[in-house]
Amino acid sequence: MAPVSLAVLVGLSLLVKRRRLHRSCWNGVPGLLSPANFLEEEGNQGLVAAVFGILFSSLCVLILDKDPLPLVAHSSQSTREYWKILALLYYPAFYYPLLACATVGHRISYLVGCLLSWCHCVVHVWQKVDCPQSPKIYRYYSMLSYIPIILCLVLLSLWYPALLIRSFTGQEETLSKEVMKIHGVTLDLQPAPLFLCFQIPLKLVLSITMAVIAVYQVALLLLVAVVPTIQIVRAGMTKDVVVLLVQFGLVPSESPAVPGDMEKELNTVKYYLWSLEVCYICSLVLCCLLTCAMLLRTLVMHRNNLKALYQGAVLDVFYKAHILRPSRQAIVCWMSFAAFQTAFACLGLLIQQVIFFICSVGFTFFVIIPLQSGTNMYLFKIIQNMWPFWLTLVVAVIVQNLAAHYQFLEQHSLQKELTNRRALYIVTYLLFPINVLVGVLAGVWRMVISGLYNAVHFCQLDISLLNRGVETFDPGYHAYCHYLKIEVSQSHPVMKAFCLMLLQLTRPEGPPGLQASNVEEGIQLMQPKKVPLSRTRFKQSRARWWLAYTLLNNPSLTACRKTALSDPTANGTQLSACKP
Amino acid sequence: MAPVSLAVLVGLSLLVKRRRLHRSCWNGVPGLLSPANFLEEEGNQGLVAAVFGILFSSLCVLILDKDPLPLVAHSSQSTREYWKILALLYYPAFYYPLLACATVGHRISYLVGCLLSWCHCVVHVWQKVDCPQSPKIYRYYSMLSYIPIILCLVLLSLWYPALLIRSFTGQEETLSKEVMKIHGVTLDLQPAPLFLCFQIPLKLVLSITMAVIAVYQVALLLLVAVVPTIQIVRAGMTKDVVVLLVQFGLVPSESPAVPGDMEKELNTVKYYLWSLEVCYICSLVLCCLLTCAMLLRTLVMHRNNLKALYQGAVLDVFYKAHILRPSRQAIVCWMSFAAFQTAFACLGLLIQQVIFFICSVGFTFFVIIPLQSGTNMYLFKIIQNMWPFWLTLVVAVIVQNLAAHYQFLEQHSLQKELTNRRALYIVTYLLFPINVLVGVLAGVWRMVISGLYNAVHFCQLDISLLNRGVETFDPGYHAYCHYLKIEVSQSHPVMKAFCLMLLQLTRPEGPPGLQASNVEEGIQLMQPKKVPLSRTRFKQSRARWWLAYTLLNNPSLTACRKTALSDPTANGTQLSACKP
Repeated sequence: MAPVSLAVLVGLSLLVKRRRLHRSCWNGVPGLLSPANFLEEEGNQGLVAAVFGILFSSLCVLILDKDPLPLVAHSSQSTREYWKILALLYYPAFYYPLLACATVGHRISYLVGCLLSWCHCVVHVWQKVDCPQSPKIYRYYSMLSYIPIILCLVLLSLWYPALLIRSFTGQEETLSKEVMKIHGVTLDLQPAPLFLCFQIPLKLVLSITMAVIAVYQVALLLLVAVVPTIQIVRAGMTKDVVVLLVQFGLVPSESPAVPGDMEKELNTVKYYLWSLEVCYICSLVLCCLLTCAMLLRTLVMHRNNLKALYQGAVLDVFYKAHILRPSRQAIVCWMSFAAFQTAFACLGLLIQQVIFFICSVGFTFFVIIPLQSGTNMYLFKIIQNMWPFWLTLVVAVIVQNLAAHYQFLEQHSLQKELTNRRALYIVTYLLFPINVLVGVLAGVWRMVISGLYNAVHFCQLDISLLNRGVETFDPGYHAYCHYLKIEVSQSHPVMKAFCLMLLQLTRPEGPPGLQASNVEEGIQLMQPKKVPLSRTRFKQSRARWWLAYTLLNNPSLTACRKTALSDPTANGTQLSACKP
Repeated sequence: MAPVSLAVLVGLSLLVKRRRLHRSCWNGVPGLLSPANFLEEEGNQGLVAAVFGILFSSLCVLILDKDPLPLVAHSSQSTREYWKILALLYYPAFYYPLLACATVGHRISYLVGCLLSWCHCVVHVWQKVDCPQSPKIYRYYSMLSYIPIILCLVLLSLWYPALLIRSFTGQEETLSKEVMKIHGVTLDLQPAPLFLCFQIPLKLVLSITMAVIAVYQVALLLLVAVVPTIQIVRAGMTKDVVVLLVQFGLVPSESPAVPGDMEKELNTVKYYLWSLEVCYICSLVLCCLLTCAMLLRTLVMHRNNLKALYQGAVLDVFYKAHILRPSRQAIVCWMSFAAFQTAFACLGLLIQQVIFFICSVGFTFFVIIPLQSGTNMYLFKIIQNMWPFWLTLVVAVIVQNLAAHYQFLEQHSLQKELTNRRALYIVTYLLFPINVLVGVLAGVWRMVISGLYNAVHFCQLDISLLNRGVETFDPGYHAYCHYLKIEVSQSHPVMKAFCLMLLQLTRPEGPPGLQASNVEEGIQLMQPKKVPLSRTRFKQSRARWWLAYTLLNNPSLTACRKTALSDPTANGTQLSACKP
């Protein structure tokens, strides 16, 4: 019954949505509707992010689903591939009206948006309440994977009414709101307290939101694919299997392997399985936290990079000089940036989970369990057998450091100089074999640290995983560099402030105070210094700006300025003007 | 019999060597002998490299040997560890006289060096001719691993006689030879044709030689540990084992598994084993070639880095500004640099072998063998099933590129500008799900390329495997940076030329032509330009230098110079001098 009702519901909601799609399409706006103005700052960043979240979650559900399209129930194995590809294009078109309703900026479109989002929301919630379990992977997986979709739809169902209400009450605030927005962009050139005011580009908001949803979806999949299985295996563990494990030497046992007398070994096996489960969950939690921390770091680094590029400091961001201008590659990278960020977050989480799980299992079974039970002491035995070797290495390193400090380095008042060269050469020669062994350890450390660093920073596109000479061969960093080019060249705050001033000059009926405040904004934008703006400097800048403004409006005053008087050429003009 | 004669021989040679060590120690030189002047350029780089080669090869033999010290035959398991640690210090001391004889610079020491190296050489060759086989790993392994030692000893046995002969015939050439050396150092600031004249620091020669020997030793070990085993398994393959393999599904078989009728399957298994062997050897050869190429690249990069640092361009080499001055850390890193390079070459080869072997086996068993035999078509089946998916991704990427080029980019005369923004936003939104899948592929590529890059460049210490912000956390790169500091601060060619001039001033009985040529060297060193030295510039510089030289020797002429005449203060003095 549930599938039938589902199919009917989906078909019905689809019809409704289709009709509404047409209505909003023809809603007095000629041509196609823009989904979102990705390059311009808007107040509706949350709304756009929510629709993209729905889209990405649908993609996640789609990949594992057997019936990718709601139109085609029970597709066959051979045609499913084609339906899935079609679905990749169908879903964006399906959710398109949810986004387009907001960009029209008309009361009716907001109303349509309201109804549409409520309708979507009710259908999805109903589906999941009606039939919370599904046979896919884990019975609650389907429900849990739909949570981001439902949350995003709830956000939309609240956002559209808010837009509608605001369109009735606050029509007049539009202009001042726009100015406030410019304030937001402008103030980010000021220091830390205004950090939260910083307007992050819409594309970046999208990519980070998508990445967080991706982390949720991948972590959920990793969790439900493994943990219930381990639990089932643990619950179903029998003494026959334990005998096998004991015979393979995987489980320690004092008594000979007799199936009847295996109570203790059975408990050990269950304890091992429980440890595996704990390791898996711990490493998964660690991965999620690390990935989210790295995504936050991306935001901070992106803000610094944007600030540096706005101020023209290209070499602070890139290793080589770049021209910040749109190009074919830059546009393609800009288009796919959010998608790349999402995909990299997924992959990064997977890689981290594999590495951390192996490490935690190794740590548990070679350190913690041996310490608890006194069995499987392989690692401790190796350390015990090799302690003279480790001691030799440590002593050699310490001796070299001490000798370098007290024997080979002569400290004058300000600078250090090499001394006792003959002894230095002798020590270098004699310790060469031991240093090779130290070098092997350093090499292992190099391998471990570079692997860990790359795994942890995999989801960060603003960091290249390659050496600085070849860093643009990294596809992620390459995409990020080009993305930055488009963002900086197309939405520089000074350019925006200038455009707004032009808009206001063509519309002189605006309140006169606004123009003054805009002009004041200009002062702050034009200061490329990184030093915190002190009160005096601010006043000084304002005074200078007013002066320039006055001089522009009264050009005759220019000749009387102090600098003009002291300038030799101006002097000459003045003198020649005085002479006759 | 062989072990007994060996022990006697080694004991005898040891006694002889010991006596000679004492003799050379008291040979008129007070205190300890320096093994080699690592920071000063010498003619005997090959000799030092040969002794270090012997030392490193002994270390390699030592690690796998059961009797680490020749003094202690048949050590027990428990004490072997201690003997090995002792051997780490014993071998450098044992080969010390071979090196020290060259630095004394006296005829008798050369003679002692001759006898000593001949003695060592004869003992080793005799050992290996007498008993070429050993039960260790592979019967010829011991002999093959001794080849570098014997080659180095042969080099020494030829080098010492050459030194001895030269000391009789060419005593007078010493001074001119020294000047020639400085010439060599000096000329490296000139461009490419003189590349081979460049005097590479002794430490770097050592580290590269050691790394090449390390590659040989590790490759040999990898080869003899695996290939003979595979050959034995292949030769001993029986039909019973083939039945097992067929039952496990590892070998394809049309007929049911009957042990009597397995001729074809037996051949298949043998062919598979042969393929494994070929893969292993091919990947090993590839690894060795790659590692050697990277070591050569290290030499080239090191030369460029040294040139840049000699000219003061610190930021061309390091990402951040460094002070090129000795410090405790710098001395420790300098001491262990050659050892680190050796160890990293070993580890790098191992890592590369693992990666390339897995890749080549995958390629062979999933691509080549299926193409040959038509079985195991897993990969081709996956590609066949997924071709609509791949096609979609390729089409999406092409469409985005074409659209970016022809639709979204407006080309003015000089610069490009973004256009058709609404269509750009719509395409960006609609292609988001497909771009996520493209992003997954890009992420896989990022993983593969960073892994491969790090594996291939593992043996290069002059490249950091970490991102440019944290690159000094890489222990290899950290050691290299500090090594460079010591090299540059302690052996700058200008400083050396200056020191030589000072030495010649205190020793005025030298031929007068030499001073002039040294002074001329100074001109070239002082030119920090990278442009090829043109003939005119050279003449101009020489003229200037002669002028400075003349003025220094005739200070009274300074007042009559053109610049002195036009200088206002000098003018005043001259005027005031003229007035009375």
